[in-house]
Amino acid sequence: MAVRITGIDETTLVMPSPNRNANLSFAAMTASAVVVRTDVMRNGRPLVGLGFDSIGRYGHGGLARERFMPRLLAASPEAYCDANGRLDPTRAFAVMMRDEKPGGHGDRAGAVGLLDSALWDLAAKLEDKPLWRLLSERFGSGDADPAVAVYASGGHYRDDQLASLKAEITRAIDLGHTLFKIKVAGAPLPEDLRRIECALALLGPKRKLAVDFNCALDADNAGSYLDKFAEYDLAWIEEPTDPLDYQLYAEICAGTAFAIATGENVFSLADARNLLRYGGLRRDRDLLQFDVSLCYGITELVRILEMAAQAGWARRRFAPHAGHLLSLNVVAGLGLGMHETAADPDSLFGGYPADMSVENGYVKMSDVPGIGIEAHPALSTVFADLLR
Amino acid sequence: MAVRITGIDETTLVMPSPNRNANLSFAAMTASAVVVRTDVMRNGRPLVGLGFDSIGRYGHGGLARERFMPRLLAASPEAYCDANGRLDPTRAFAVMMRDEKPGGHGDRAGAVGLLDSALWDLAAKLEDKPLWRLLSERFGSGDADPAVAVYASGGHYRDDQLASLKAEITRAIDLGHTLFKIKVAGAPLPEDLRRIECALALLGPKRKLAVDFNCALDADNAGSYLDKFAEYDLAWIEEPTDPLDYQLYAEICAGTAFAIATGENVFSLADARNLLRYGGLRRDRDLLQFDVSLCYGITELVRILEMAAQAGWARRRFAPHAGHLLSLNVVAGLGLGMHETAADPDSLFGGYPADMSVENGYVKMSDVPGIGIEAHPALSTVFADLLR
Repeated sequence: MAVRITGIDETTLVMPSPNRNANLSFAAMTASAVVVRTDVMRNGRPLVGLGFDSIGRYGHGGLARERFMPRLLAASPEAYCDANGRLDPTRAFAVMMRDEKPGGHGDRAGAVGLLDSALWDLAAKLEDKPLWRLLSERFGSGDADPAVAVYASGGHYRDDQLASLKAEITRAIDLGHTLFKIKVAGAPLPEDLRRIECALALLGPKRKLAVDFNCALDADNAGSYLDKFAEYDLAWIEEPTDPLDYQLYAEICAGTAFAIATGENVFSLADARNLLRYGGLRRDRDLLQFDVSLCYGITELVRILEMAAQAGWARRRFAPHAGHLLSLNVVAGLGLGMHETAADPDSLFGGYPADMSVENGYVKMSDVPGIGIEAHPALSTVFADLLR
Repeated sequence: MAVRITGIDETTLVMPSPNRNANLSFAAMTASAVVVRTDVMRNGRPLVGLGFDSIGRYGHGGLARERFMPRLLAASPEAYCDANGRLDPTRAFAVMMRDEKPGGHGDRAGAVGLLDSALWDLAAKLEDKPLWRLLSERFGSGDADPAVAVYASGGHYRDDQLASLKAEITRAIDLGHTLFKIKVAGAPLPEDLRRIECALALLGPKRKLAVDFNCALDADNAGSYLDKFAEYDLAWIEEPTDPLDYQLYAEICAGTAFAIATGENVFSLADARNLLRYGGLRRDRDLLQFDVSLCYGITELVRILEMAAQAGWARRRFAPHAGHLLSLNVVAGLGLGMHETAADPDSLFGGYPADMSVENGYVKMSDVPGIGIEAHPALSTVFADLLR
């Protein structure tokens, strides 16, 4: 018998933070957590799928409640299960997107991705497997490497000058990281150069530094900025300019030896294809950072990977934006290049489950069924409240 | 003293319709109506700005309430008024978009556009002018032509074969229209050809027909479809394929003499620039149909017009999607080429105010202050309920 979705609950969490980057403050940030309930009983309780947002573009409760939750709840199980009655999130994606117009891939992509992640958590739990193993069987080699390359992402602007930057990098090194990313272009250039030099000194010759412009450059200053950075040894330059200014990306790529990373603010197959067609990105070095849950979820990301493969892009060139467990499962299961780790291990969506740790720049995946939210110290608490 | 926004109310209207096009049903369609209240008294009552959605991409209440209404309400009047205390919707746009990331121009653009339209309604009422005159003074020639070219848009698929199509076209002709647009590609080709021939016969030699593919074609069938239509005399071919597949647009434009119309599902300056850079559209014939309220509103549309002008596009090549009074004011005030009229004059957002009528393909603008919603028979009723 087919699995039936019996209810969906969304909660918007208020997550204020003193962090800033070159284009926004996180003072009023929100994010959604979602629970999808089913009629399948496990250990005397209904089996649930858990999902949550990537941070930075606010929660998706309004859209989820207005359009996507009602469509799932109104559908018959046959619409989102396969012929064997197994939950198929790819079919659920089609249910959610019915009667939606093409184009306009923004908040909608995040609302659908939020629900998609909970459905994949469910699909994996129904097979009693970690999500990364399920994804590897369905869309990968079937023989996924449980060791995943990770990097630590942080270095936001705060009011304390270099103190929190130093503390973050020192802690990341202590945790076992070998690659750290900091924000730039949110302060005058001399301050940024001090931040870069401070970070490089702490990281030493055996570890690497990347910098994130958060889209702050434009056609007038991109060249001169990158020239000033050219003397540093940087792993990559992230989002130098507006994510949709493909022409400027092409000019930047043509003018620099630095690896360029972008894609976290590009949310669909159609937009990703344009980035690859027109952005001048180089398959031998650049990084594609499409955010799994903000780009309609795993269902759409798999389509993006297929499109990119046809254009000659290896999966190792994908390093998804986010820093959360869903993304980690996707990197491991689909054989992508690298996982972004939120630098603060105590933050709600940062860090790793208690049984996982970073060693020399790698984490080893666990065998907790689903995404593994129940094994994450902070997230499990949030969802325990939702499930009560 | 600066105008203060004292409250904002959004209501989501359920607008089910039996209409279908090539990619969606309108059975569960919704749209938002919004009222912005101020501390300015007129005739003993607080002056209000009224706004409403374009139909087809659902209401925007959730996003408006989660992010954009709270930012406006929390801002001081100095943030959205100019140095003389006059309401400046361009400054209000910046207030609404604070701490929003670049990229992802979808539902957010519609939520901001919804509020932007109510703010422009207010700005015009504060000067006791119709919106089209205010826009002409700020962004146009200052000497706008009150006669606006319009066309009738309809011909959706229904279950009655040709009966409602014939009735719609006959009524549009009786109302004074000289150009009619119908949906295609939502039925097998022979049925579409019957629809086109039926429409052309009713319209006769002095009137024109356009057809709207609603994105239904792809790289495999676009060429053969347009070849089959080549024997007909059509004013334009609308949205033949996915709005973001610029490469296929360029191929289609290179292979047809038909005018191509697109842009209604492209919602930002950044996306519009890409369409013009890569879509192969021809400045001598093609039409740009960016939807005013779905693309962040008038503030962003003016930026799109400036970008397009630099790329050599005349304002007469713009024919905004929508069919409502906001769009009509924008076409008149900014000197755009043509206004789309919802074919059913009795529909909530269709038709014209009682004192306006179509004559030989033109309407003459009235002098009602603001957008003119209070003079529209159906809309005024909706807002009267909201304002009670």
